[in-house]
Amino acid sequence: MKPPLQFWFDFISPFGYFASLRIDALAARHGRTAEWHPLLVGVTVLKVMGLKAIPQTPLKGPYAARQIARYLRRHEITLGRDPNAAPMNPLPAGRCFAWLRAHTPAHAKAFAQAALHAHWVEGRAMDDTAELRAVALAAGVPPDAVEHALSDPEAALLLRAEVDAAVAQGVFGSPFVIVDGEPFFGVDSFELIDDWLVVGGW
Amino acid sequence: MKPPLQFWFDFISPFGYFASLRIDALAARHGRTAEWHPLLVGVTVLKVMGLKAIPQTPLKGPYAARQIARYLRRHEITLGRDPNAAPMNPLPAGRCFAWLRAHTPAHAKAFAQAALHAHWVEGRAMDDTAELRAVALAAGVPPDAVEHALSDPEAALLLRAEVDAAVAQGVFGSPFVIVDGEPFFGVDSFELIDDWLVVGGW
Repeated sequence: MKPPLQFWFDFISPFGYFASLRIDALAARHGRTAEWHPLLVGVTVLKVMGLKAIPQTPLKGPYAARQIARYLRRHEITLGRDPNAAPMNPLPAGRCFAWLRAHTPAHAKAFAQAALHAHWVEGRAMDDTAELRAVALAAGVPPDAVEHALSDPEAALLLRAEVDAAVAQGVFGSPFVIVDGEPFFGVDSFELIDDWLVVGGW
Repeated sequence: MKPPLQFWFDFISPFGYFASLRIDALAARHGRTAEWHPLLVGVTVLKVMGLKAIPQTPLKGPYAARQIARYLRRHEITLGRDPNAAPMNPLPAGRCFAWLRAHTPAHAKAFAQAALHAHWVEGRAMDDTAELRAVALAAGVPPDAVEHALSDPEAALLLRAEVDAAVAQGVFGSPFVIVDGEPFFGVDSFELIDDWLVVGGW
């Protein structure tokens, strides 16, 4: 079995959501799976890279808004929230996901997919504990695991460790995929990843 | 005749050079032509956007170096200079190109292609007047036009006007293409441009 594709996303990133809809199928086309990891672009972009958030960056902000709009049209996706509105707090969903990855990995991806769907399609606040609990339970996460994931202080440490490990591997944006050590940033690089896997690396 | 694709590049940008090798064929596949424009990423990225140069940006710098290396392997391109070395001064070539675009447009693209080839494949300094003159003459630019392009103070104003016009349209990086008003950044977006033109816009 070939090693899984490593996939990072931030719950507040629309492009991370778009990528989440395609990464498993992309991996499966090449006999792979995808291992999902949480990322915090507030740490990577703002603190580590020392940049401004994209919406606050002249020229890049308006460009990103157009990229999102045309991606939605091309892939016939309808969002339940304005992708250009101020983002929610990414920590509650990220911590919950990090805790589940560490303690009940069989339920972690289902939670992440459900939380992304609830946030981006249903417009629900995944930084609200009650909403997050409801989404996790509906996704089949055992109730006791949900409570731990929502309240254990360890969850914050686990998320921080995930982000630190990502940065150590050069991961900086959402989405980001590492294929057998080769880094790919952005959902627009998915065709390149496909090509890379077909050719067996360039 | 459908309107041309608007193509911007900076002579110091390796990805701009890569794009220059494909933009005319991309346009021709869809019955279009490409109109080439000079850009200065030192103005757009550093001054207008307020960012650091990519090589000086943590995480992004090493990533860009890998992107360049794998693009070269994938497209079987051999460079005559280190793409990660300090860039040359982009002003002489940019000014020369801007002057030729304004005064002898029939020769402008041939000059740009020759200067890009001389710089990236032959490793020649296109910020050296003698080298620039030799390349322009070899590209078939009339000798008197070459001397004007190299020394008229108007050339600097023309380049500045090109960059200002680019920024006014939201152009910020190299390469950048505008197709019927829709902006596309990066050589990795060329497959998207192809798709956009096939579908007739999304």
